Amino acid sequence: MTEDVRMERDTFGEIAVPNARLWGAQTQRSLQNFRISTEKQSPELITALAVIKRAAAEVNQGLGVLDASKAKAIMQAADEIIDGKHPEEFPLAVWQTGSGTQTNMNLNEVIANRASELLGGERGEARKVHPNDDVNRGQSSNDVFPTAMHVATAYAIVKHLLPALKTLRDTLDGKAKAFADIVKIGRTHLQDATPLTLGQEFSGYVAQLDQGMRHVESALPHLYELAQGGTAVGTGLNAHPQFADQVAAAIGKLTGLPFVSAPNKFEVMAAADALVFAHGALKTVAASLNKIANDIRWLASGPRCGLGELSIPENEPGSSIMPGKVNPTQSEALTMLCSQVFGNDVAVNIGGASGNFELNVFRPMIAHNVLQSIRLLADGAHSFNDNCAVGIEPNNERIDTLLNESLMLVTALNPHIGYDKAAQIAKKAHKEGTTLKASALALGYVTEQQFDEWVRPKDMVGHSAG
Amino acid sequence: MTEDVRMERDTFGEIAVPNARLWGAQTQRSLQNFRISTEKQSPELITALAVIKRAAAEVNQGLGVLDASKAKAIMQAADEIIDGKHPEEFPLAVWQTGSGTQTNMNLNEVIANRASELLGGERGEARKVHPNDDVNRGQSSNDVFPTAMHVATAYAIVKHLLPALKTLRDTLDGKAKAFADIVKIGRTHLQDATPLTLGQEFSGYVAQLDQGMRHVESALPHLYELAQGGTAVGTGLNAHPQFADQVAAAIGKLTGLPFVSAPNKFEVMAAADALVFAHGALKTVAASLNKIANDIRWLASGPRCGLGELSIPENEPGSSIMPGKVNPTQSEALTMLCSQVFGNDVAVNIGGASGNFELNVFRPMIAHNVLQSIRLLADGAHSFNDNCAVGIEPNNERIDTLLNESLMLVTALNPHIGYDKAAQIAKKAHKEGTTLKASALALGYVTEQQFDEWVRPKDMVGHSAG
Amino acid sequence: MTEDVRMERDTFGEIAVPNARLWGAQTQRSLQNFRISTEKQSPELITALAVIKRAAAEVNQGLGVLDASKAKAIMQAADEIIDGKHPEEFPLAVWQTGSGTQTNMNLNEVIANRASELLGGERGEARKVHPNDDVNRGQSSNDVFPTAMHVATAYAIVKHLLPALKTLRDTLDGKAKAFADIVKIGRTHLQDATPLTLGQEFSGYVAQLDQGMRHVESALPHLYELAQGGTAVGTGLNAHPQFADQVAAAIGKLTGLPFVSAPNKFEVMAAADALVFAHGALKTVAASLNKIANDIRWLASGPRCGLGELSIPENEPGSSIMPGKVNPTQSEALTMLCSQVFGNDVAVNIGGASGNFELNVFRPMIAHNVLQSIRLLADGAHSFNDNCAVGIEPNNERIDTLLNESLMLVTALNPHIGYDKAAQIAKKAHKEGTTLKASALALGYVTEQQFDEWVRPKDMVGHSAG
Amino acid sequence: MTEDVRMERDTFGEIAVPNARLWGAQTQRSLQNFRISTEKQSPELITALAVIKRAAAEVNQGLGVLDASKAKAIMQAADEIIDGKHPEEFPLAVWQTGSGTQTNMNLNEVIANRASELLGGERGEARKVHPNDDVNRGQSSNDVFPTAMHVATAYAIVKHLLPALKTLRDTLDGKAKAFADIVKIGRTHLQDATPLTLGQEFSGYVAQLDQGMRHVESALPHLYELAQGGTAVGTGLNAHPQFADQVAAAIGKLTGLPFVSAPNKFEVMAAADALVFAHGALKTVAASLNKIANDIRWLASGPRCGLGELSIPENEPGSSIMPGKVNPTQSEALTMLCSQVFGNDVAVNIGGASGNFELNVFRPMIAHNVLQSIRLLADGAHSFNDNCAVGIEPNNERIDTLLNESLMLVTALNPHIGYDKAAQIAKKAHKEGTTLKASALALGYVTEQQFDEWVRPKDMVGHSAG
Repeated sequence: MTEDVRMERDTFGEIAVPNARLWGAQTQRSLQNFRISTEKQSPELITALAVIKRAAAEVNQGLGVLDASKAKAIMQAADEIIDGKHPEEFPLAVWQTGSGTQTNMNLNEVIANRASELLGGERGEARKVHPNDDVNRGQSSNDVFPTAMHVATAYAIVKHLLPALKTLRDTLDGKAKAFADIVKIGRTHLQDATPLTLGQEFSGYVAQLDQGMRHVESALPHLYELAQGGTAVGTGLNAHPQFADQVAAAIGKLTGLPFVSAPNKFEVMAAADALVFAHGALKTVAASLNKIANDIRWLASGPRCGLGELSIPENEPGSSIMPGKVNPTQSEALTMLCSQVFGNDVAVNIGGASGNFELNVFRPMIAHNVLQSIRLLADGAHSFNDNCAVGIEPNNERIDTLLNESLMLVTALNPHIGYDKAAQIAKKAHKEGTTLKASALALGYVTEQQFDEWVRPKDMVGHSAG
Repeated sequence: MTEDVRMERDTFGEIAVPNARLWGAQTQRSLQNFRISTEKQSPELITALAVIKRAAAEVNQGLGVLDASKAKAIMQAADEIIDGKHPEEFPLAVWQTGSGTQTNMNLNEVIANRASELLGGERGEARKVHPNDDVNRGQSSNDVFPTAMHVATAYAIVKHLLPALKTLRDTLDGKAKAFADIVKIGRTHLQDATPLTLGQEFSGYVAQLDQGMRHVESALPHLYELAQGGTAVGTGLNAHPQFADQVAAAIGKLTGLPFVSAPNKFEVMAAADALVFAHGALKTVAASLNKIANDIRWLASGPRCGLGELSIPENEPGSSIMPGKVNPTQSEALTMLCSQVFGNDVAVNIGGASGNFELNVFRPMIAHNVLQSIRLLADGAHSFNDNCAVGIEPNNERIDTLLNESLMLVTALNPHIGYDKAAQIAKKAHKEGTTLKASALALGYVTEQQFDEWVRPKDMVGHSAG
Repeated sequence: MTEDVRMERDTFGEIAVPNARLWGAQTQRSLQNFRISTEKQSPELITALAVIKRAAAEVNQGLGVLDASKAKAIMQAADEIIDGKHPEEFPLAVWQTGSGTQTNMNLNEVIANRASELLGGERGEARKVHPNDDVNRGQSSNDVFPTAMHVATAYAIVKHLLPALKTLRDTLDGKAKAFADIVKIGRTHLQDATPLTLGQEFSGYVAQLDQGMRHVESALPHLYELAQGGTAVGTGLNAHPQFADQVAAAIGKLTGLPFVSAPNKFEVMAAADALVFAHGALKTVAASLNKIANDIRWLASGPRCGLGELSIPENEPGSSIMPGKVNPTQSEALTMLCSQVFGNDVAVNIGGASGNFELNVFRPMIAHNVLQSIRLLADGAHSFNDNCAVGIEPNNERIDTLLNESLMLVTALNPHIGYDKAAQIAKKAHKEGTTLKASALALGYVTEQQFDEWVRPKDMVGHSAG
Repeated sequence: MTEDVRMERDTFGEIAVPNARLWGAQTQRSLQNFRISTEKQSPELITALAVIKRAAAEVNQGLGVLDASKAKAIMQAADEIIDGKHPEEFPLAVWQTGSGTQTNMNLNEVIANRASELLGGERGEARKVHPNDDVNRGQSSNDVFPTAMHVATAYAIVKHLLPALKTLRDTLDGKAKAFADIVKIGRTHLQDATPLTLGQEFSGYVAQLDQGMRHVESALPHLYELAQGGTAVGTGLNAHPQFADQVAAAIGKLTGLPFVSAPNKFEVMAAADALVFAHGALKTVAASLNKIANDIRWLASGPRCGLGELSIPENEPGSSIMPGKVNPTQSEALTMLCSQVFGNDVAVNIGGASGNFELNVFRPMIAHNVLQSIRLLADGAHSFNDNCAVGIEPNNERIDTLLNESLMLVTALNPHIGYDKAAQIAKKAHKEGTTLKASALALGYVTEQQFDEWVRPKDMVGHSAG
């Protein structure tokens, strides 16, 4: 039984394409030439390409270089893609030509065939809209693909990552405020240290995310600069002089983001520095989330043989026999994906550093990694927020027990009895395994009343707000 | 309209599962708790898990701890998975619990339900085969998942990566032999150097891949050591004393690879060093392939304004107007995927270094990266081989022109007229932009006959075979 | 023969210290306990620590908690260190305690002994200034070391890296302007493409560095936030309430940079995100410099068998026999150090992600890598500027030859004779190895006059300014 | 006051060299052209280069192409360098030409001048031994430098790294045996799990290091293949046909290692795969050491508020007030240097992947990182061994307390009273914070005698030897 096919054509000649598909010859050829692994071009990138095609059609119509009916059909076809109506039409691998040309052509072909049908024509060689002359008009893969990378990345950051980080930040801030009066033992070098409040500890996480959001935001201005209009090598050959500015404005309108035409097209096409820098911010967020996830799983370790200061939600069976065993699975997912982001960072760096002359040709790989990292961090933050952070509760009894057992509280006696006697108390307690109070009373340096008055952990946590 | 569901149950309680699916409560719960990005557990890993389940059922039956009819049904269900008959049943994300417990349970649940049906029972709570008591008998996620990682990795290396590298190596070796007599200019520091043959140049690539295959093979012995039998923490609690050895043998028989029970279960469960080392070999292969792909695209650069010594196959339209423009798209795909392998290496390293106590919990992430890297390198080598390497042809005219224009050939005159006069000839030729011969004759240091006799590039390429 | 030593003491007891040295017991102990490799704490970090000690003494005096004569002596001793007068006094390894405590004590001990001598006292146990009670007053290693990292990094960025990048940027900008009228072949995918000017090509490098400087600057605000005043765990226990703000102001005055007290001390002590993000900017600059260095060495490749469009300065013997062989050694040094920066980035990420609870203890390693990367990029940019970029000259003849040989110029005929005929001309020229003009005339599609009028590369380079 | 200088000369002309120094013009020129950061060529590499020079002189004399008296002087001068007598003569930066040519010339110049003096001549232009014609005879930087990298790396691995790992392995093995009967709580996911012995836990570390040593050893065969004899591009132009084999044998004799002449010189010069793979083994060792160091510092965390199962040696003051606070500084140093090794790995990968044509020109950077990583791991293992591992002691009381408090022991009741009742016991104990025994007795499911007989942790640790 043979598949139902039609013959499509490019400058290479004819090639059979499944009739059920809107794509054309160049997409089909890429499918056959690059049978490499399972990673496909990201949906976010496909959407961004459709946005560009839609914007270009609108601008080209306005500039009088594209027929109004064709423009309308192209815009409608692009809208369908943006609305997710053709998910099966973009089958190409990440591992293709380094310029992303084949995926740009995939868009051109699908839109041309679909627009043709919208105009009452057919799909295939007799179509009423041309992939290159109409859909790709005034464009080159060399400016389209970098533009799509900037659009998809900026959009994903603004619409997905930043809100996700904000949600987690707010949850942790709520916890910081709720835990403001819980005094607990501090830990440095994994060793007992002077006390702080659980709220102060959480305020550090909040501050990390606040800084992280600012770092990510600082990557946006470069991302907002678009290559569109540079055409083949950045000179804008064959593009209308007003095309670059108008298409950036149109994309801005479609996305609600302040895109502009890049003042220097050579930089934005020959390099991928905006993406390299943006990923530098992403990996910083990964470092923050990794620290937070680690702290929380350690503080929740136990139930009997760990630190046990926090309880985290139980979302799935940890062990069928041990009801207290709550595996910190959300922390595990989060730390794993942070490791992935650190790995992706290296791939992006190598790709970004490896451009030659007028075009960086590590683009699909860079796009894949940047968009995956954003997805991982955004989804990871949401998952950790919803399934762990919102349900974090202090184990007050455990926190108190540890705090009171700690020898570090002896520091509070220094002003009253001097360093030497305080040290003697701590040493004796450590050696004999007793409490500070017992040791202090045994040595006779303080009365019980004095001890209780002077050794107040609450007075040791300072004035530093979260 | 509501989906047709059934209620499944775990120690957490009831949960609705689509009736069309074989998975159970724990899989469903994981789906809901880990909505993170799009990366799923690799098919190679699912297959390896099914191999383990099949082997365990067989061994458990032999040891008399599993009913024969159940064992047979489990084996049949596992075989179906191995044969790829249930691709839609393993929907879990890479980003889940770091022990891979949920994916182990996914296998247990699917096999239990399917085995129940094979025994004439139903899927769901009334099933005739129990996910834990029967399918997971004598096992723990903590030994199953590390075992699956070793099995999947070793299998993918032996059956996919090594043959792919061998294919490319043989193609390049054929080219090295075919190009053995083509003398060309050498290049060091991107600058003209003394000549060698094109065959010698290609022999270097062959030697890189030969070494690379040896490096990858050196990672196999550690991978052949299996954790199975260690159960929860490596002590083998609740496992039959003969289970570990027998199950390793059974897996060996099913896969045709020499697996053994790891002599120290604590190492293989608490760490992931075998994978970290294996990926160290993978990244070395990536370094080799990157160098080869880069050399070839540079040697094929042009057609007019590059080096132009090689022609590579034209697989797709490079440019609609420029028939000579053959973009080195296979090199681009290969260098991009090598960058990814370098990135994956970092993720694997971090995961491997981050274990605590009795269990490394970065396992799904490590597995994902190792298996992706193998797939990328194997598929990439095949694609580059089939679509580029086999069709590489020398541009003999261009090679000769460059060779003869080169000033480095003057080295051959040293023994006859001395270093100083030879240097004068080269300097004059460089300054005036003439050939060495013209310069030599103009200076009167040699006759035309002498020049032709003494300056023979063929005599400068030495005795070194490829 | 025995070295002249004196006995110094810490809470561990006595230890012999060379009499010639100003350091004390804790420094000596660290020297003996950490005999690991050859990397020492960076001079930039030592200077920053001395700045902090000076600022703290001044503030403590003002707050009335430190005797004026001691404060003056401490400030004078610190000034001597800042002035580089005691380079031999800071011998500790990077690989020590992860909090940098031992290096903080190294500073405390050296300053205490030196200040004692300045006050007419001796060095050693009878000294007039105490390392902890006086020099370290109101401080803890836990807030001092993070503060020093921020101060050293911000200072090195502002005073060394940014000016170095600016110098190279201005040189390249001068070249871009000087080369504004040199039309040359463009290259994408290493293949001939449509023309641009050499000035446009260089304008891309200038834009990369402009963006790079902005990226680096965006890392400064977080670096300007200082941990000083957080003491042991961020609560500020035992520090005067005004100490944090006043010491930040004093450091700002000493360095000329706008340092402030971090609004959240827990974040800046428990994490190292400001450094992780700053290194993200550094690696972006490395990606840019790598691209620039690569382009330039490729464009200068040859002299006969490469691209040969640029001449770069000859700084050292390339080959004793080949006067034209100018190895691009500055590009090689630059690309090597960019690779190092990419490696350092990973080390910084891992360290930054690996903090626990109240203190990140990967600090000396992070500081080492960040400061090394800044030094590499700053020195590398200067070296590349002075020894390569300033002397770059175009090989106009070669540029013209390649441009005119290129087949891509045929694009200019499209509007006049149509795509099909233009393609025929290009195909014929490629096949026969002739020029476009010869092919066009042979086919009879244009007259010589028309060809010369229509095919003008200068008209193809567009309106895009650099 | 001016420095005492002499004029040295190369093909570039004259240059002033400090008279106190043995180096010559090319070294001096490199010093001036590459003022980049502070990293110098590693001493191990300088030694390896001296070994090559010594071997080459010996072989050249034997082949009759070098005068015996000159050869003897060269060998003596090289021996002095090998013996560390001229540490101040090798001042060149890592960041120089990517082929290491300048450092090869540094050796040639120093040896030529020193050999001249040994022959009664002078240093400088009138010297009796020529840097190129005599010391570098039959060699090219292009084969010398890769050879030196292999020799230095193999030597450092065999003589330093492997013994260091063996020492630590033996110490940990001694601990594993000494702790064989100490039953303790296991931990997975940081959560309490079934018990194992402390000896079993340590046996995992031993197995990691055993595997690690095997991995490192598997990198040696490739490293033992030497490029020497390939000269400029691998063809061996101008080298005596027997030079390659003889010099490899001579180097083998000098080092005691089984070096051979590389069967394919093109591979070993154009690529650096042997180093990339060797570093892959190094980073695997780093992953192991990181895990071990982390486990130990966590098990020693406390003294009151951590896990507290181990005591580690106290080597320096942790805190002046808290005698029990023993910061795990050796673990901190070790984990920091492991992070550095992971970073170095990336730099090596990028350098290794970035060769072009006949020569990889990222060599000094690769050598720097590989040798630093070996030094870090070897010194780090020794330091951790001597200052931490040898002194590790179990806190038996704490270990017992945690074990007995754990709820996981309930697993042992399953065979006797069934899963459901066992689960009830555990749940009740967890909810009420009591012991398992108290809960079991309260529920009346077992007698005290039964509980004590059935719940024996020692019976749960299995038969698995370390």
